[in-house]
Amino acid sequence: MSLTLYYAPHSSATPTHWIIEELGVPYEAVKMDFASGSTRKPEYLKINPNGKVPCLVHDGTSIFESAAIAMYLGEMFGVEKGLYPKAGPKRGDAMKWIVWCNVSLGEAVSRYMHATSDWVPKEIHHEPSAAHAKKSILEHLAILDAELANKPYLLGEQFSIVDAHLASWFEYVSYTKIDLAPFKAIDAWAARCKARPVYAKISAG
Amino acid sequence: MSLTLYYAPHSSATPTHWIIEELGVPYEAVKMDFASGSTRKPEYLKINPNGKVPCLVHDGTSIFESAAIAMYLGEMFGVEKGLYPKAGPKRGDAMKWIVWCNVSLGEAVSRYMHATSDWVPKEIHHEPSAAHAKKSILEHLAILDAELANKPYLLGEQFSIVDAHLASWFEYVSYTKIDLAPFKAIDAWAARCKARPVYAKISAG
Repeated sequence: MSLTLYYAPHSSATPTHWIIEELGVPYEAVKMDFASGSTRKPEYLKINPNGKVPCLVHDGTSIFESAAIAMYLGEMFGVEKGLYPKAGPKRGDAMKWIVWCNVSLGEAVSRYMHATSDWVPKEIHHEPSAAHAKKSILEHLAILDAELANKPYLLGEQFSIVDAHLASWFEYVSYTKIDLAPFKAIDAWAARCKARPVYAKISAG
Repeated sequence: MSLTLYYAPHSSATPTHWIIEELGVPYEAVKMDFASGSTRKPEYLKINPNGKVPCLVHDGTSIFESAAIAMYLGEMFGVEKGLYPKAGPKRGDAMKWIVWCNVSLGEAVSRYMHATSDWVPKEIHHEPSAAHAKKSILEHLAILDAELANKPYLLGEQFSIVDAHLASWFEYVSYTKIDLAPFKAIDAWAARCKARPVYAKISAG
């Protein structure tokens, strides 16, 4: 079995890095460097035509998109470790939150970043768009906060890779500098997730 | 077994509607009506706190997000019908394209729509943001076009629910009125997908 993860520290590959370390599965890590353009080189574009991280290569098949990789790693390596549900409705619960994070919350965060961030050209900054996107981010965080109000982890009593995925994303949301203090259930849950030893390991790069 | 799909015609539930009909699995369809606010009513928000369609309820568990539902239906009902790969790298291939559609292509399309569409308040329309998003849409479509250049369907020789999901989405992309003529492989593939009898059935509402 061959498993290779292309990643970069403190990037959209961080949820994947966290998950693969929680699973304890042997893998090769290939650190990519945006500054030198390594994700845009022809040999990498053959692996991931999007030129982004993360990308997982499993026995020759490349899998991009962090949400897809999370679910893939979960079903391949997480079930027997108790970190991902077996096939059935409970797995549907896991899938819906991982996808919700990258699609619905992610869309709002991306719109906000495009309207405000130093990472994009200044000419697309736009205050009314930022305000509209911020409202959407807050609505999504309120949904997550309500979900976490009465249980320690997203799927119930036990930590799962769903928590690693969303807690890593929540850290990215904090880059918006939107006040997240009102979301007390999220805050407590994120602290529980970040207390895991793997989080310290991956945060070190 | 109880399976209920909350949907609306010509909405983000269309990929799900197409997939569930391809699978031929018995289900109850509940048509929602945005105009009367039925997706915002408290009884529906208990099922889907996002107040959107699609939402699938399987034996009491509600699953939202069309990409999650696509993969869930695929693994639960699609494998033995030859419409979704069994667990393993080939399934990873299916998952990456479904997620890529809603996350990466979807993010660019959403930004374009927020900058241009009649569906959003005029004050967030913004020409530089539209141009930036359009460039991203075209880059994503070029990736999909290259992927489809040498095979009839996304996973190879056989139609799968991955094709239904992305072909339905491609129709949504056409609402941007961006010129899609350069993407000849996508065009031929979309025509193949839309020739399926299920497409005619779901298009009738």
